[in-house]
Amino acid sequence: MPAPPVGVVGLGQLGGSLAAALVAAGRPVQGWDVDAAARDAAAARGVEITRALSGVVVLAVPLPAMATALDGLTVDPGATVTDLGSVKRPVLETVGATAGSRFVGGHPMCGTERSGHAAVDPDLFSGARWAVCLEPDTELPRWLRVAEVALDAGAAVVPTTAAEHDDAVAAISHVPHLLAAALAAAAGQAGPLALALAAGSFRDGTRVIGSDPGFVRAMVTGNAGPTAAALARVQEQLARPWTDLVADGHAVATRQHGRRDVRVPLERAALLALGRAGGAITRRRAAFVEGWVPDQA
Amino acid sequence: MPAPPVGVVGLGQLGGSLAAALVAAGRPVQGWDVDAAARDAAAARGVEITRALSGVVVLAVPLPAMATALDGLTVDPGATVTDLGSVKRPVLETVGATAGSRFVGGHPMCGTERSGHAAVDPDLFSGARWAVCLEPDTELPRWLRVAEVALDAGAAVVPTTAAEHDDAVAAISHVPHLLAAALAAAAGQAGPLALALAAGSFRDGTRVIGSDPGFVRAMVTGNAGPTAAALARVQEQLARPWTDLVADGHAVATRQHGRRDVRVPLERAALLALGRAGGAITRRRAAFVEGWVPDQA
Repeated sequence: MPAPPVGVVGLGQLGGSLAAALVAAGRPVQGWDVDAAARDAAAARGVEITRALSGVVVLAVPLPAMATALDGLTVDPGATVTDLGSVKRPVLETVGATAGSRFVGGHPMCGTERSGHAAVDPDLFSGARWAVCLEPDTELPRWLRVAEVALDAGAAVVPTTAAEHDDAVAAISHVPHLLAAALAAAAGQAGPLALALAAGSFRDGTRVIGSDPGFVRAMVTGNAGPTAAALARVQEQLARPWTDLVADGHAVATRQHGRRDVRVPLERAALLALGRAGGAITRRRAAFVEGWVPDQA
Repeated sequence: MPAPPVGVVGLGQLGGSLAAALVAAGRPVQGWDVDAAARDAAAARGVEITRALSGVVVLAVPLPAMATALDGLTVDPGATVTDLGSVKRPVLETVGATAGSRFVGGHPMCGTERSGHAAVDPDLFSGARWAVCLEPDTELPRWLRVAEVALDAGAAVVPTTAAEHDDAVAAISHVPHLLAAALAAAAGQAGPLALALAAGSFRDGTRVIGSDPGFVRAMVTGNAGPTAAALARVQEQLARPWTDLVADGHAVATRQHGRRDVRVPLERAALLALGRAGGAITRRRAAFVEGWVPDQA
């Protein structure tokens, strides 16, 4: 059975890069963007520009635009709908309410401080993790279709649920944005001498808050509960004796794991167990998927 | 008057790089290290290995070793003593107590997670800021001799005091190390799924805690008061509404200043005012120094 077409809605950095990666992988790619320049750039990379989408429809628009991303477009009733949003529960509640069991949430863990179609890079997803949500009512064949899009783009698929995803990214993405903002704002208060002496540790610690503030705001407020909980856990760490804190933080930051190859049957519980163990899927086979888990799992 | 020799005590990453940079700048460089391999590596780069030091003697050893760095060495009574330690009040209290007004504290704002003589890089200081401390009893000719060492290594000199330096680096270096440790430790608690999804913002936010934990511990505990105060200011930021926090953090992190060239007379108050304004010195002249300040100053 040939792979279904992929329809990418929003052809900025993420959507445009995905479309370019899938064209390079030999898949038929359709796309649309409200911006004519983004449409022209995608067309030049081999994307069929159309308002009529089918197969796997990927919403590659900012979180606040997710609910209205399909307005004015025609979507085949059998199409599977997915998204690239950085928070999954709110998208499940809005897009999922409309698309029902045809919706499968997704989140590729990549992107840079740059945005827009001029930042398109067909290798953006190469080697990245891509969370693909497997809720209790998710139809497994649709989940696999979305997973195959991620695999074709060069990513490794992490099966998870919207709730587990949102808790995890609060700890490793949303809280880092808030810490970077607080570090920068406090250094700004400390004055010109401090900013003049700022070197590598300050640049690394504040880099991520160079991103578009609207994007960051939508992300942290869209995942407010888990982010507040994860921030509280960081605050608990900061209250510990510094010697213990430095030792534990160093141990986590420098930990190296080997990987063990695994085969996982096409069953929800087994797939989610792989994700919870820190593993990822790298290949679809007929009756199972192949991937790896960290050595200690 | 020819530039005096420079004697570097400790030929690891920082000291070895400084010795190599000064050899390249044409200055006579002496050096010593307790490790024979570090001595051999420095000798191969043109450093005269000797226990008898004169001119400007640079203590390039870890903070806990600072007080005993000169044990077993012979230092010319007229020599000026400086150091490269990341905290300045404790070094002023220990080394300054012995060397008196011959001591001028210094701190180049560079270095990487790597250490040891294998990480030596003659360009390490190129374009970096180098704080050189000007206390009320500092002899200005000795301060200038230390500043010239920093300039010859390719750095820009920031005049400051030990107290102002320690407050500033708490905000832009020591607190970032603690935030990185807390972020990593909390993510470790969050579990394998979170660590598997960790991407750019987590790597940037935790990179600095990959450094040697002994070095980080000595730094934060050696500057405990200012670091605790700076951490409290970050905590206040984290308690603000996230929308305001993100906007302010983004503004500081992305602020771009132009520079205005200035001449500063060889007077303590004028030099310290330059440092407080966020400026730096790039050249020594006979009766003044040249440098720049940020546009808004």
